[in-house]
Amino acid sequence: MRRIDLADASFLYLESRETPMHVGSVHLFRFPPGVNRQRFMARVGDAYRSATEFRKPFGEFVTTGRLGQLGPLYWEKDPELDMEYHVRHSALPRPGRYRELFALVSRLHSTLLDRSRPLWEVHLIEGLQDDQFAIYSKLHHATIDGVAGLRLSEGMCSTNRRTRVDYSPLSLEAYEKFKAAQEAARTTRITPSQRELRSVAGAFSEQLQISGHLLGFLKGHAETWLGRGGGLAVPFRHVPKTSINARISGARRFVAQSWPLDRVKAVGKQLGLTVNDTVLAMCSGGLRRYLLAHNDLPRHSLRAMVPVSVRTEDDFDSANSVSFITANLGTRHADPAARVKAIVESTRAGKNLLTGLSAREATLYAGLSQLPLLLTSLLGIADRFPAFSTTISNVPGPRKQLYWNGAPLEGIYPTSAVFHGFALNITLVGYNRDLDFGILACRRSVPQVQRLIDYLEESLAELEALAGGA
Amino acid sequence: MRRIDLADASFLYLESRETPMHVGSVHLFRFPPGVNRQRFMARVGDAYRSATEFRKPFGEFVTTGRLGQLGPLYWEKDPELDMEYHVRHSALPRPGRYRELFALVSRLHSTLLDRSRPLWEVHLIEGLQDDQFAIYSKLHHATIDGVAGLRLSEGMCSTNRRTRVDYSPLSLEAYEKFKAAQEAARTTRITPSQRELRSVAGAFSEQLQISGHLLGFLKGHAETWLGRGGGLAVPFRHVPKTSINARISGARRFVAQSWPLDRVKAVGKQLGLTVNDTVLAMCSGGLRRYLLAHNDLPRHSLRAMVPVSVRTEDDFDSANSVSFITANLGTRHADPAARVKAIVESTRAGKNLLTGLSAREATLYAGLSQLPLLLTSLLGIADRFPAFSTTISNVPGPRKQLYWNGAPLEGIYPTSAVFHGFALNITLVGYNRDLDFGILACRRSVPQVQRLIDYLEESLAELEALAGGA
Repeated sequence: MRRIDLADASFLYLESRETPMHVGSVHLFRFPPGVNRQRFMARVGDAYRSATEFRKPFGEFVTTGRLGQLGPLYWEKDPELDMEYHVRHSALPRPGRYRELFALVSRLHSTLLDRSRPLWEVHLIEGLQDDQFAIYSKLHHATIDGVAGLRLSEGMCSTNRRTRVDYSPLSLEAYEKFKAAQEAARTTRITPSQRELRSVAGAFSEQLQISGHLLGFLKGHAETWLGRGGGLAVPFRHVPKTSINARISGARRFVAQSWPLDRVKAVGKQLGLTVNDTVLAMCSGGLRRYLLAHNDLPRHSLRAMVPVSVRTEDDFDSANSVSFITANLGTRHADPAARVKAIVESTRAGKNLLTGLSAREATLYAGLSQLPLLLTSLLGIADRFPAFSTTISNVPGPRKQLYWNGAPLEGIYPTSAVFHGFALNITLVGYNRDLDFGILACRRSVPQVQRLIDYLEESLAELEALAGGA
Repeated sequence: MRRIDLADASFLYLESRETPMHVGSVHLFRFPPGVNRQRFMARVGDAYRSATEFRKPFGEFVTTGRLGQLGPLYWEKDPELDMEYHVRHSALPRPGRYRELFALVSRLHSTLLDRSRPLWEVHLIEGLQDDQFAIYSKLHHATIDGVAGLRLSEGMCSTNRRTRVDYSPLSLEAYEKFKAAQEAARTTRITPSQRELRSVAGAFSEQLQISGHLLGFLKGHAETWLGRGGGLAVPFRHVPKTSINARISGARRFVAQSWPLDRVKAVGKQLGLTVNDTVLAMCSGGLRRYLLAHNDLPRHSLRAMVPVSVRTEDDFDSANSVSFITANLGTRHADPAARVKAIVESTRAGKNLLTGLSAREATLYAGLSQLPLLLTSLLGIADRFPAFSTTISNVPGPRKQLYWNGAPLEGIYPTSAVFHGFALNITLVGYNRDLDFGILACRRSVPQVQRLIDYLEESLAELEALAGGA
């Protein structure tokens, strides 16, 4: 038995049927020409089922210690792993469009994982049009963070079409390879000094415009994080309340779409924006359209929590420690130029602030803020006092075409988590030549989220028009 | 808002992620020759989605009153019913055998319904071999009892291949027709007198061999049932503890098989048994083989809770009030004749006892015992002190071939519920010329339950050999 540290365990404690705490991804592949598809799918399944030694804790289940439900939680090795349970084979009804794929993933992502088993499922999905198949992975947030989860299956892929690999991405073998490639994947946890807490409190304060005694809040929060108990509740200022900031139900809607990175880069170049800011501007216009269509556009602009790299201006290629800033999306402006201006000002200020922190402080800040623990501590009040409006997360991915045993990987779409008060999550992966957007929403609070795909395209076209005139 | 009575609400209160409280069924159809299958499936979906007025409470969701979570629960009309959510289209991976169908149904039956919506889902399943398709329905036990749930879709079927029907079986329209056909479908709830409670206590006592103060137990139970609070815990004697009587996890395994009624009847005729007793003998031999294979055969024989009709010897054709008896399955005997003898003695004694009750007493007895409330009150201790070993429920169904818009209905397989302490449920429906068995088990406590299908066949063959020698 290994004790589960509190940061991970919090995802287990706070989980409910309305707020499943798993993250996942949809990997879209194309069958290699001429293969027997049924046999090829069986081989993918066999690879996943072949693991006997797992990356921790994918071979372990959650159990309680002597103190029972009220005490700490532990990982315990599952002696009777039922791989047929974990690795599932599904199919889409005809005509097998992305629409049917998204409907299936939406349903699969809405249900809780079985707590009496290792907390993961992998679904192989056949029946897609156009010679494609998909792998949907579902991993509990207590086992892995979202970014590491997204990158898991890269471990079994290769840039070489001819490479043959038959081990599971969840195996210890794959992990050793993954770890070698991604040394600093997980943020180290540190015990902060008073002075460090004060600096980070300043950063939080400026970013979130928190009213109240932030240092006390932060101390309490750091103590929760570090395992000594505590809790907090602070309202945040100037964050508008929209349908996105509602209590959520258990059902999800997932939609996905890719945009060529070159298109986004071209706009950014014309307007003098980073790729990340261009993406934010695209999302800003899309969200404004969505809220207008639902008669729900607030007087104040939306604010997005945006994980960013704190070490470099280039937001895509670094695998460094990631922190976050709060971006003012400028959604109250009808003029796209005014929205872009608001975004650039807020992200520049956020980055300046973060780069002013020491390395230890930045790590602490990242540890305290990057993971949704901040949100989950606030669960009880998050729908009334949202800290920000939504999450827009831009995850760097491999910039090369990958293959699994000759099958080209054509897209990596994140299926993140939503929480009370944050009923919408936009996460995108920069893979190969595209930006692959995965949008997850509470099906009830954020109706017709599929239209956001069209609104994002309209918004990008609007930015292209603006760039053309610039 | 309509207040949910305590009997129904108990299924909501006691539900957990390990013990979902829904019941369901798989209806197996064959496509009519020459139809466009995609269009035909779409039409089935449209029929289900067409309803605007629902049989209560299929258009309502669960909500709390002024007292919040601790107070009574209410049904409230859902103003924004999302039929795309409730009616789902799924497909099986190739080769589309029953094995793939059972795997999908097992998964679908393992997940909780969304509490913020009306508590039902219908899954249309395509991709079956041999020109078949399936409809899996999932209905919360708070909305309907298992038998009524099983019979719902009969409402949209016809004995005439040419009849065209396009309304939903969950609609008010279908319900009016169903109600006209099945007047006394639901047991009336009555307030028992002291004397009636004493009689029923005698019946319980003999059936369950309860030690302790049964009248007090029953009063407490009746009071819980009638909404005045209370609770109880009594150990039962001589019920062996097996893997079937374990705490359960959230995952289920569902398997199904049909046997020709004529085959079962022929054995019964030779051995002088009712169809119900023949089914029990078949299950007894099957369970004995299963437990032997898992090195888990207990010294005492298994006892099954068996719902029976109390008004007539014929267990199949009556729609009368159903009660239950506890059958001694005689599993400790290697000799099938000895098992049959134990079964017949126990079921005869049970029926004699039940027929000794007055109509009001029988109704009270049925009300108190037929529904799993008895089990769920005992949830905390059921795995340590099982009241019986398993449930074997024989549900009368239509004895004629049914059609939905020309598609022959080829089987009705129940997907029941399992509970802590009762990890296996065998329910069968007498439909047309077959007995359609649906077996539901906790995937962890009752491993390889699919082998029970073979063991049931072996057991029936053994009875046929016994009958041949008789």
